[in-house]
Amino acid sequence: MAQFRAHVFVRPKAEVRDPQGEAVLAALRSLGHDVAEVRTGKEIVVTFEAPDETAAREAAQRMGDQLLANPVIESYSVEVEREAAAKAR
Amino acid sequence: MAQFRAHVFVRPKAEVRDPQGEAVLAALRSLGHDVAEVRTGKEIVVTFEAPDETAAREAAQRMGDQLLANPVIESYSVEVEREAAAKAR
Repeated sequence: MAQFRAHVFVRPKAEVRDPQGEAVLAALRSLGHDVAEVRTGKEIVVTFEAPDETAAREAAQRMGDQLLANPVIESYSVEVEREAAAKAR
Repeated sequence: MAQFRAHVFVRPKAEVRDPQGEAVLAALRSLGHDVAEVRTGKEIVVTFEAPDETAAREAAQRMGDQLLANPVIESYSVEVEREAAAKAR
């Protein structure tokens, strides 16, 4: 078993309003930044053990499906890395 | 001017408690996942125009400093990509 770190990025779907992103957009513009669009999402970093990278990716996908993303309004993507490489990030 | 998309990842510093991450950890374990640690953060995706990638990166850093991250408890990192490449993500 090796240690893996999965980054699960949960983002509101493109057709869903993102009030937090709209607030950040207005704030950045008031600070003088010429910004076209802002979208906000969550990053959930999960550390766990798995026999190999394929199994780790499947486990992270299951976590996303079961708990981390609301499929009605959100989509998610998963990046998996071995813990040794993860340290650098 | 070209269009850029900056991904600003805002994460609680390692020594700061992350109650949302602790709640996700407990929920994942109750679902049967053998998880060691969970940390949560925010991803802010900002679309804007800049003359080149260096200028875009500097602008995104300024946004992070001025508004997006609370430097007392959070750290952030920035990834910048040209809009054409950004579509694929």
